[in-house]
Amino acid sequence: FSRNELLKTIHKFDGIICGTDKIDRIFLKKAKRLKIVSRVGVGLNNLDLQLLRKNLIKVTYTPNAPSKTVAEYTIGLMINLLRNIHTSRKSFEKGKWVKILGKNLNEAKIGIVGVGRIGSELLRLLKTFNCKDILVNDINIDKKILKKYSIRKATKSSIFKNCNLITFHLPFSMQTKNLVTKKEINLMKRDTILINTSRGGIINEDDLYNALKKKKIHSAALDVYAKEPYFGRLKKLDNCHCTSHIASMSISCRNQMEFECANEIIRFFKGKKLKFEVK
Amino acid sequence: FSRNELLKTIHKFDGIICGTDKIDRIFLKKAKRLKIVSRVGVGLNNLDLQLLRKNLIKVTYTPNAPSKTVAEYTIGLMINLLRNIHTSRKSFEKGKWVKILGKNLNEAKIGIVGVGRIGSELLRLLKTFNCKDILVNDINIDKKILKKYSIRKATKSSIFKNCNLITFHLPFSMQTKNLVTKKEINLMKRDTILINTSRGGIINEDDLYNALKKKKIHSAALDVYAKEPYFGRLKKLDNCHCTSHIASMSISCRNQMEFECANEIIRFFKGKKLKFEVK
Repeated sequence: FSRNELLKTIHKFDGIICGTDKIDRIFLKKAKRLKIVSRVGVGLNNLDLQLLRKNLIKVTYTPNAPSKTVAEYTIGLMINLLRNIHTSRKSFEKGKWVKILGKNLNEAKIGIVGVGRIGSELLRLLKTFNCKDILVNDINIDKKILKKYSIRKATKSSIFKNCNLITFHLPFSMQTKNLVTKKEINLMKRDTILINTSRGGIINEDDLYNALKKKKIHSAALDVYAKEPYFGRLKKLDNCHCTSHIASMSISCRNQMEFECANEIIRFFKGKKLKFEVK
Repeated sequence: FSRNELLKTIHKFDGIICGTDKIDRIFLKKAKRLKIVSRVGVGLNNLDLQLLRKNLIKVTYTPNAPSKTVAEYTIGLMINLLRNIHTSRKSFEKGKWVKILGKNLNEAKIGIVGVGRIGSELLRLLKTFNCKDILVNDINIDKKILKKYSIRKATKSSIFKNCNLITFHLPFSMQTKNLVTKKEINLMKRDTILINTSRGGIINEDDLYNALKKKKIHSAALDVYAKEPYFGRLKKLDNCHCTSHIASMSISCRNQMEFECANEIIRFFKGKKLKFEVK
């Protein structure tokens, strides 16, 4: 469904299973019968939660389903950028045989900002690669996780200053918006790699563009953008590895998310308790 | 050193630390003083071992150093191709926002041909990703490995028929040359991904080109070629992910290989026993 198609047809429905579609004031004005929104995925920033609450429309989502898939995708991007796989491929296509020296995962000082479900799963995967130097930041970190993976808690600015591979696993909110701007990038080293598979807007796109263009940092991999679909200028940079919000796009992950969403809708209309209600 | 530079200067030296440089009849005719060849890396197909033996020139190499680094690179390529990262990036650069559904590692039926040092390390890494369906083939497989990773031994043709992610970790020899030709590709499924980070020539490049062009299989990632540097037509295909023999190009791996090679040379001239002599 396009936005327009949705707006035209939503008045007929009692429940909706949605993705990143905007459930805002305009949408809710048309959605006269709507009683439940079941979100395929984990981010909620496309939903006007306050208005939904006011209209007594229930909201549910699938917080667990994407963790493994997004963490695995992140490992792929990490190896890709640390080993210059994308750069090598690009040179190759231009007819150049260039051997670029990279880093193994355990040669990088890794910073993880956001240690929720996905960040924790990422830590589990990194353990196998014998990564020893990992700094983590979150409002609230389970001490057991720090001990289990022998990692250290650090401030965000310490991560920006010291790590050369920084990955973000945060929800989008007024607190995380523009978490990385020119100011934070200026703290970083020249060999820093940034990865964002969580939500766009956390890294300021204009400031990142300027930094990558001037090679102030090594490279970035983005799967998410402030406005999606994204057609902006970051894609033109050789050191910016852009994909189109596909970190959770594996068959099993989509199946699980859609299955969970449908089950929440069924539970609701059978009068049962929701499993992942957003309150 | 280029080939010509090497041929001009080798008569002055008693030992050589070399990479993939051809140590052949022409080279050895010039290398009047040469007593030892210390090979940075693991493949020996660039050395005329028979002639070296005849000339009483010792040969040593670094069989252990690249294992971790090449296995990690292979994981990167696996996630890259399974999740269509390279295809997504290419579409993105052309201004298209395409969401392609991929597979997690544990959704793929994985075939590993060659279970030596690198193949075994790859198995260790895959364990973390909860891969359950792995078939392996080698002349000689340690039964402990089969048990440790709960994997099954299979014939090559059974791997070609049943797996959708096949990776090669073999030395180059008359037995492994053209191991995959049109005939073997015809056994494979449409969603099969081939990865070769071991030695070129194992997969026939013309047959692979034709298969990928006709989309008989999903895609391939090649880091090695029958003749290197490679400037051939495979690089033109969107479903062939080509890099320039960089699977072992990490700082720590190169350091370890070069350190081991230099140490072998020192051992030799001190009259000590070599650690990794090729006999």
